Amino acid sequence: WQRFVAKMVGVMLQLKKPAQDDPRRLIHSFKVALSITTVSAFYFVKYLFVCFDKNPMWIIITVILVSEFSVGATLAKCFNRGLATVLASALGLGCYYLVDSIMGGHIVGSVFLGTLIFVIVATMTYMRFVPQIKAKYDYGFLVFILTFCIVSLPSYRDEDLLDIAKRRVITIFTGVLMWILVSIIVYPIWAGEDLHNLVSKNLQKLGDSIQGFGDECFGTSEGEGSNKSNLQAYKSVLNSKQIEESLANFARWEPCHGPFRYGHPWKQYLKIGILLRQCACLIDSLTGFLDSTKTPSEIKNKVQETCIQISKETGKSLKELSVSIQKTIPPCAANPSIQKSKIVAMNLKSILKSGLWEGTNLFEDIPIMTVTYLLL
Amino acid sequence: WQRFVAKMVGVMLQLKKPAQDDPRRLIHSFKVALSITTVSAFYFVKYLFVCFDKNPMWIIITVILVSEFSVGATLAKCFNRGLATVLASALGLGCYYLVDSIMGGHIVGSVFLGTLIFVIVATMTYMRFVPQIKAKYDYGFLVFILTFCIVSLPSYRDEDLLDIAKRRVITIFTGVLMWILVSIIVYPIWAGEDLHNLVSKNLQKLGDSIQGFGDECFGTSEGEGSNKSNLQAYKSVLNSKQIEESLANFARWEPCHGPFRYGHPWKQYLKIGILLRQCACLIDSLTGFLDSTKTPSEIKNKVQETCIQISKETGKSLKELSVSIQKTIPPCAANPSIQKSKIVAMNLKSILKSGLWEGTNLFEDIPIMTVTYLLL
Repeated sequence: WQRFVAKMVGVMLQLKKPAQDDPRRLIHSFKVALSITTVSAFYFVKYLFVCFDKNPMWIIITVILVSEFSVGATLAKCFNRGLATVLASALGLGCYYLVDSIMGGHIVGSVFLGTLIFVIVATMTYMRFVPQIKAKYDYGFLVFILTFCIVSLPSYRDEDLLDIAKRRVITIFTGVLMWILVSIIVYPIWAGEDLHNLVSKNLQKLGDSIQGFGDECFGTSEGEGSNKSNLQAYKSVLNSKQIEESLANFARWEPCHGPFRYGHPWKQYLKIGILLRQCACLIDSLTGFLDSTKTPSEIKNKVQETCIQISKETGKSLKELSVSIQKTIPPCAANPSIQKSKIVAMNLKSILKSGLWEGTNLFEDIPIMTVTYLLL
Repeated sequence: WQRFVAKMVGVMLQLKKPAQDDPRRLIHSFKVALSITTVSAFYFVKYLFVCFDKNPMWIIITVILVSEFSVGATLAKCFNRGLATVLASALGLGCYYLVDSIMGGHIVGSVFLGTLIFVIVATMTYMRFVPQIKAKYDYGFLVFILTFCIVSLPSYRDEDLLDIAKRRVITIFTGVLMWILVSIIVYPIWAGEDLHNLVSKNLQKLGDSIQGFGDECFGTSEGEGSNKSNLQAYKSVLNSKQIEESLANFARWEPCHGPFRYGHPWKQYLKIGILLRQCACLIDSLTGFLDSTKTPSEIKNKVQETCIQISKETGKSLKELSVSIQKTIPPCAANPSIQKSKIVAMNLKSILKSGLWEGTNLFEDIPIMTVTYLLL
């Protein structure tokens, strides 16, 4: 019984974690619930219910499917869904009437329509594999296939097909509009802001890692635990590519807000991201040396001082760059640190030229850091 | 006009590329089209149409939404969709009857039902942020929210609610069954096979990169172009984490097939993947040295021979490991190469101890390669 209680507490703690990491997730959940409850008013209020042709189901479905976390993602998805619905409805109607007028009612007509559906579905499914389309319009193509099939297939019900198509377009647009309004007006979550924070946080993590590495490698650390976690911080930077790219993709959809304007250089963020990953790679290789650096103590003593200094200065300047990105100010504060670390690097180089090969990687950080600096 | 033609040709070539990279994509498209056309028979044949309560739309929607590329992904999605539909239908019906029996028809009942929907939707949306759920059951939770809303909301139509729920469950299961049959019987695409090939291909790419690096760094290369692309091969390995994890996730769903059985060690593939990414990181750092290695030519001459040898042997053994993974045989073929590269590495070490610091990273590859080897 106690184990059961302990397990339940564990599960509850896990449930609490996402909200602790990012409280906006809680807000997002309430936003979704709010908009769905509002939409369900279409069911409760008889007048609205009749307005939407007794079938407001698609409004609810649309709201649920379109409710993405950030504004940019929402707009991208809404655009996809809206455009795809209109195009597919038009094409589906066209196909249906074409077949109907030429050979209506015959079995040949059904076969022809089936062939048409086969060809179009196969083409669209295949198109989804094209990388450029997959990145941006994957959802749109899915909706296109769906709507096309629903509209073009004849039903034996005595309803007007044009009516079905029209109603589908109207309900979907109502749903889309609903969620766009809620997501922009009620505590909006911007993908651009996320990207901005992610990049600056990654810079800081790298700074932490480099400092942690210097301490760890040359054994001046006391608080072991916190250092280890600092040293591991770079690992999340290594795998940040997909997140950054999708955020940048969404950020381009967002209207101007806060300190950002249209034409904010999102591509620059991606470039910084690439450099950061290279830098994280270097740190990863450096940690590979951790064990091997523990043996030759006479050489170590010679470089120890400089190496600690260099890792400290590099880490410091990376962190200062991170702050300056965060505040979108020119990175003057980092200048002295970079100057210092360059000087220390020169020192180290001259020491190394006298015949050592330990810790060489360290000053390979400097060029990359400088490039990062130049990009700002 | 000519520019227009040239552009069209360019677009056509881009369209051809996915099929060239992986012809199974073409087959997948045809499979989807085939199953949808088959399902649309429910519309054309009047008897079937009546059977499914005049609304086979949801079968088509299900087939389209559930049609994933690999069998594993399909089964995972079908399981999610099926289970979520049943649970949500039950809960939705329960909620509706509860509210209906206590305070049916009153405005209070509507408000109470609205509150219930609000709470459940908010909880479910929030749950989707928990990492473990997001990785495996994200789609299931989405379907749960959808079905719950549709079933629990009262409609003013004179239909039995139980009937709606029952029909929804039946149509969705028909659609799911349809696609599962097509995807397993007609030229199945296994995620496990993909993962298997991906890992062995990544190993080979790393081998290529290391060999390319050796040639490039010490300037014995003639065919510049092909070497450059070899050298860049490791880059795709760096970003393979997400793909590998999702493939391994799907592979666990797949029934036994081909050379694989239940309990195939998918987790081992992920471990190899992590080691491969570390190795790719090392290569990435090595390429950073490419420019700096071009200057000091007297030291270079001393190590040149050994370095070329070491990169060749390492590359060769990586490639042989790749072949042995591909064929699932013990990696005996790689043994001599690994022995050789170890010997060469020892040579290099002794050279380096006489006071050089160029190219030190090279023999850092050996331990990692050996670990990869031990894992098999």
